[in-house]
Amino acid sequence: MKRKLRMAMVGGGLTSFIGPVHRKAIGIDGEIELVAGAFSIIPEESTATGEALYLDPSRVYLTYPEMFEKESKMPADKRVDFVSVVTPNHVHFGPSKMALENGFHVIVEKPIAFSLEEAQTLKKLVDQTGLVLALTHTYTGYPMVKEARHMVRSGVLGKIRKVYVEYPQGWLSKPLEKSGNMQASWRTDPKQSGMGGAIGDIGTHAANLAEYITDNKITEVCALLNTVVEGRRLDDDCSMLVRFDNGASGVLIATQVAAGDENNLNIRVYGEKGGLEWKQEEPNTLVVKWLDKPKEIMRAGWTYLSDDAKRFIRTPAGHPEGYLEAFANIYRGFTQAIRDYKPGVKTDYAKYDFPDVEDGVHGMTFVETVVRSAQSNEKWVKIN
Amino acid sequence: MKRKLRMAMVGGGLTSFIGPVHRKAIGIDGEIELVAGAFSIIPEESTATGEALYLDPSRVYLTYPEMFEKESKMPADKRVDFVSVVTPNHVHFGPSKMALENGFHVIVEKPIAFSLEEAQTLKKLVDQTGLVLALTHTYTGYPMVKEARHMVRSGVLGKIRKVYVEYPQGWLSKPLEKSGNMQASWRTDPKQSGMGGAIGDIGTHAANLAEYITDNKITEVCALLNTVVEGRRLDDDCSMLVRFDNGASGVLIATQVAAGDENNLNIRVYGEKGGLEWKQEEPNTLVVKWLDKPKEIMRAGWTYLSDDAKRFIRTPAGHPEGYLEAFANIYRGFTQAIRDYKPGVKTDYAKYDFPDVEDGVHGMTFVETVVRSAQSNEKWVKIN
Amino acid sequence: MKRKLRMAMVGGGLTSFIGPVHRKAIGIDGEIELVAGAFSIIPEESTATGEALYLDPSRVYLTYPEMFEKESKMPADKRVDFVSVVTPNHVHFGPSKMALENGFHVIVEKPIAFSLEEAQTLKKLVDQTGLVLALTHTYTGYPMVKEARHMVRSGVLGKIRKVYVEYPQGWLSKPLEKSGNMQASWRTDPKQSGMGGAIGDIGTHAANLAEYITDNKITEVCALLNTVVEGRRLDDDCSMLVRFDNGASGVLIATQVAAGDENNLNIRVYGEKGGLEWKQEEPNTLVVKWLDKPKEIMRAGWTYLSDDAKRFIRTPAGHPEGYLEAFANIYRGFTQAIRDYKPGVKTDYAKYDFPDVEDGVHGMTFVETVVRSAQSNEKWVKIN
Amino acid sequence: MKRKLRMAMVGGGLTSFIGPVHRKAIGIDGEIELVAGAFSIIPEESTATGEALYLDPSRVYLTYPEMFEKESKMPADKRVDFVSVVTPNHVHFGPSKMALENGFHVIVEKPIAFSLEEAQTLKKLVDQTGLVLALTHTYTGYPMVKEARHMVRSGVLGKIRKVYVEYPQGWLSKPLEKSGNMQASWRTDPKQSGMGGAIGDIGTHAANLAEYITDNKITEVCALLNTVVEGRRLDDDCSMLVRFDNGASGVLIATQVAAGDENNLNIRVYGEKGGLEWKQEEPNTLVVKWLDKPKEIMRAGWTYLSDDAKRFIRTPAGHPEGYLEAFANIYRGFTQAIRDYKPGVKTDYAKYDFPDVEDGVHGMTFVETVVRSAQSNEKWVKIN
Repeated sequence: MKRKLRMAMVGGGLTSFIGPVHRKAIGIDGEIELVAGAFSIIPEESTATGEALYLDPSRVYLTYPEMFEKESKMPADKRVDFVSVVTPNHVHFGPSKMALENGFHVIVEKPIAFSLEEAQTLKKLVDQTGLVLALTHTYTGYPMVKEARHMVRSGVLGKIRKVYVEYPQGWLSKPLEKSGNMQASWRTDPKQSGMGGAIGDIGTHAANLAEYITDNKITEVCALLNTVVEGRRLDDDCSMLVRFDNGASGVLIATQVAAGDENNLNIRVYGEKGGLEWKQEEPNTLVVKWLDKPKEIMRAGWTYLSDDAKRFIRTPAGHPEGYLEAFANIYRGFTQAIRDYKPGVKTDYAKYDFPDVEDGVHGMTFVETVVRSAQSNEKWVKIN
Repeated sequence: MKRKLRMAMVGGGLTSFIGPVHRKAIGIDGEIELVAGAFSIIPEESTATGEALYLDPSRVYLTYPEMFEKESKMPADKRVDFVSVVTPNHVHFGPSKMALENGFHVIVEKPIAFSLEEAQTLKKLVDQTGLVLALTHTYTGYPMVKEARHMVRSGVLGKIRKVYVEYPQGWLSKPLEKSGNMQASWRTDPKQSGMGGAIGDIGTHAANLAEYITDNKITEVCALLNTVVEGRRLDDDCSMLVRFDNGASGVLIATQVAAGDENNLNIRVYGEKGGLEWKQEEPNTLVVKWLDKPKEIMRAGWTYLSDDAKRFIRTPAGHPEGYLEAFANIYRGFTQAIRDYKPGVKTDYAKYDFPDVEDGVHGMTFVETVVRSAQSNEKWVKIN
Repeated sequence: MKRKLRMAMVGGGLTSFIGPVHRKAIGIDGEIELVAGAFSIIPEESTATGEALYLDPSRVYLTYPEMFEKESKMPADKRVDFVSVVTPNHVHFGPSKMALENGFHVIVEKPIAFSLEEAQTLKKLVDQTGLVLALTHTYTGYPMVKEARHMVRSGVLGKIRKVYVEYPQGWLSKPLEKSGNMQASWRTDPKQSGMGGAIGDIGTHAANLAEYITDNKITEVCALLNTVVEGRRLDDDCSMLVRFDNGASGVLIATQVAAGDENNLNIRVYGEKGGLEWKQEEPNTLVVKWLDKPKEIMRAGWTYLSDDAKRFIRTPAGHPEGYLEAFANIYRGFTQAIRDYKPGVKTDYAKYDFPDVEDGVHGMTFVETVVRSAQSNEKWVKIN
Repeated sequence: MKRKLRMAMVGGGLTSFIGPVHRKAIGIDGEIELVAGAFSIIPEESTATGEALYLDPSRVYLTYPEMFEKESKMPADKRVDFVSVVTPNHVHFGPSKMALENGFHVIVEKPIAFSLEEAQTLKKLVDQTGLVLALTHTYTGYPMVKEARHMVRSGVLGKIRKVYVEYPQGWLSKPLEKSGNMQASWRTDPKQSGMGGAIGDIGTHAANLAEYITDNKITEVCALLNTVVEGRRLDDDCSMLVRFDNGASGVLIATQVAAGDENNLNIRVYGEKGGLEWKQEEPNTLVVKWLDKPKEIMRAGWTYLSDDAKRFIRTPAGHPEGYLEAFANIYRGFTQAIRDYKPGVKTDYAKYDFPDVEDGVHGMTFVETVVRSAQSNEKWVKIN
């Protein structure tokens, strides 16, 4: 397919946060062209967004059903190849389902859906159609996260024993949702966000990161969910003891009331022989600790890295890549999978290294289990 | 009292770890003179230690009962003023009790005793005699820890909401106790160490630090204790959810199998308006985070610090003080209290700012509660 | 102009370093479309590059003169708006000059030309035509560099006294140019690179950064240029004492034999009342030091930043932006200037905040002066 | 000699800075007993200091000549073994000379004397008497500095090419000497400080550190000395290009007007194969960089260190040692040399690893040469 892939977007109007992030990210590798969109349920915003993006007005739609109807009838050399769903949580399922039903590949913001049931429906559709679905757990797109996983898999650290993963933010320390902050409003509204507040919004990223790097699943949790800011309708703070299927244990923290913290996702993993440490805010560095030799600082862009990391790096050492580039890496795997896609042939997701529909289902299960654990007096609750 | 205070030491032979640390620490401020000791149950080691320290051989004793008997009969201008107890845990109670009974002030390594009951006996003796007893929770001796507490108390951070305290070490990642490492041997032996392994050895420091800085007590725990290294007889890894009496919650981690970590005690405290971060391995720095202005880096030695911190600082900014100086700060408060001591007048510990017998009792209660919680299926266990 | 700007590229074949960087950078903001190119003097590489970028083959040219000839004859709704020149140094002048003569705006890699004379020719052309010319001194594209300049200008630091700017790299510690490394080859070849090795390649970035932040020009230098690696034909190491026109003095270091260093451009500026510190490898942080209060850590994405920085930031705090985004910021100012361009009206470069033709001329003067100083026994040499 | 060494102090009254530092430092290892002193030219201060230190009043003297006269007549089992000279610069020579003439070993603050001539006189006396003289270039007392030298000597970095050493402080950014600050007053007074201000006070430390680690001497300088603060009588800011005798070159910076900086002595050394980085404010860390493998973080207290460093470390990894301990390390070598001293046998200083009288002479030569260079229009001035 010697052309750019054509993308449509659902959500992502000019005033949204994550829509522009997706658009900037896809620009980096030059493999994707945004050609259509239903950017907002407010018609004026959808139109204005299309204009600001220099789109053909005839492909700027007011609703996503209209978009799917019209786009699916377009000739093959014009029709979009895939849809990017960047709406609030309660509008992930609808457009994703409709996209798959109309033969479009899908990339969708996390959480994949509003309920576990919806997530499972999407999984069935993906299984049936063979279409590619990616979930934007951005943080596993960072090359040094991939290097971390590579090191765990290679066995140099020995059996993994301890995992500490944290996602502290401070931006919800005050009731921003009461003063018109759009991002705060939908995230703290159970009708738009789902049953999880901080646990759904960022706790899932933390869990995904830990499971990705350790190549292990969390099997049991003992969770505490708090609503720290008075009057808030969902949890804004969460901490839990966790157990992994290889016998490791650890702690997962996700909070949005860590006053003064930015977006401080970080993880430490300890094995029998050494440990790893990675921080999202300094993403190009991976600290490796050893039992009996000096700590090592591995850095993006060096030749000593594994191919797992190298193929997601764009610049030489010391030329920092960041959040947009991590995002672009999710799209990089996704677009490669689409280019390789053959109808009826199941995609080998491992090869492309991006979060897929199974991660989506697992994430929903995780949130539901944590909420259940938080409400329980039982110490440990299993994730099924 | 225009002279140096005279000290005797119980334990602390040449091959011990903490004895020499105490001796180096007391040298710094020049207020104390070591004049006597029962340094080891091995007669040769006690003698050799006395010799290496240039002590009068007649005051180097083979047992601490002998020492107390003889020293208490010395004339006032020769007799020791206080005793420093630096033996393994199971020999904290005996010499401390005998010292108090013989009219000597006491400074004792943590934990204060082997059981809660013993701790309470010591408390009664202190209450009865009015003698000064200090507990070497070294880490609260650091000036920037004192500054942190000052900030919390001053209210600039608002109500405290979250506390994350960690004490990861890596040195017990292998079964060192099986290859003759003396420090590892007694620390992993329930007969010498008590019911707690990592939780007793370092978890208590973490709890003490959190309670000191936040000026709040931990009231409930939900704990997981692990014995990660096969064959070990005590926990070497511990994590727990905690609740404080002001309604804050948090996480406490103490582990000795964090491969590659050194002595990485650290704490983060978040209030409504800002947060604090301190790391023992960079002790002269206190990070202060705010909701809406730049993060601040407070540093030892600057004029902007509070008197609570300043009076424990010896050098100008940029001339780093460390672990020995923190240790010396415990002795600094302790010796001031002894100099001010008037028989029959209760010591105002707050004024001198060092850990005392109540901290000792509380620490024993903490360990017992955590062990109980770890064995329980109940989620939360209260600390009485 | 309600459309993307159309760009042609000279140089930047698939195997080049900086060409792809430019292309990734322009993708981020979605304001530019690459439509034409003369990517390499090797016809096969130019063709292959066009193909890989999904370009119309009819607009992939074998030489830049051919490109200018044909593109200038295209209809206005197809013709490129500007040319990006990303060739080795000795091919900066030719295409830039031809572009201007044919009515195209130009963005060109630094140094602007091979000699001061050429640079002055370009300046004349820009002055005559009023066309927009930008020079990719990437590092001043970083938002926190702009914040630094804002702080200096605001006067909060008082009069600037000292400036220390460094650009240490380690990649030329070995004679890579002898083992076929393309980047090393042309950079160490006086015929392609010019009279300056490290001083031209990275020393100019350091000087530009210092002058940009301090809003002052270097007026005198006392320089030492070394060729550390035996057999190399240009300097690979450079250090100098510098004086600024406001009376400040400082040190400029640029070396490519700092073994193990990546791309460690960094600067410290000290005024009467405080100081600033910025490091390219952690670009989202600006350290501000004060005489009598805690050091502050300013971070990209916070509301407390000035508009000078804010308008070049794309993500919230804690979502790191990097090198490509800094590059995109040069293009951001450049494209805005082109959109605002009115034939015959002189562009107000300050408004758009990107390096321009005057910076290009000044950079050439700087290199020539430093080389002269290095050859002189006189202590100080003036920059005219 | 099975006893503590007996020390007398010249200078170091209660209000001085460095006197108390020496006293705290000597307390750490318990090898030295302060028994006599002439602490101040103000009789009341000398007396008060003796009292505060619990000294025998009969050994607290009003002048150092009186002290030497009386102490030299004391019986061998009471007489001091050595003298510690901690006065301002212009009073280093007198007491040092008199001490040597009276048969006492000497440890003296840097600079060793007020002029090169005086320094040479001391050297002659040391050579004649065989007595031990140490110079407190404190910063080479840090264990990780010793490790750095060990690495250079071992050859793992290859031939050293570049050395960047800096000593920025900010405390003299304002004319403190005009508002009664005692430390500022004598340091900016040529009659007390000598011909060098910042260059003498801290530049000499920087030069000493660079020469110690690289095992090479600075042979040529090209220096700029500034008096930044108006009305000051000595330089407060200094930068220079330097050349070493092995062919390496570099930059030395020493400034006291780096507003907001504390005591930020730091050094970077680059060889053919790798580089080193050390910062006094984080003294327990040594960063090692390599051409083709990850950067390593070496830390005090680990078994992988060389014996050169290990024998100067007192605590396990992660229990930070600081400035006082570095100071104590100078005394550690010095006291060992005294214990080993045999009249008439020349001391093998290398074995004890402390700065000696030759370093003192070299330091004076360095300052004189730099001042000469700063006044010259010649580019390079040789250090003879």
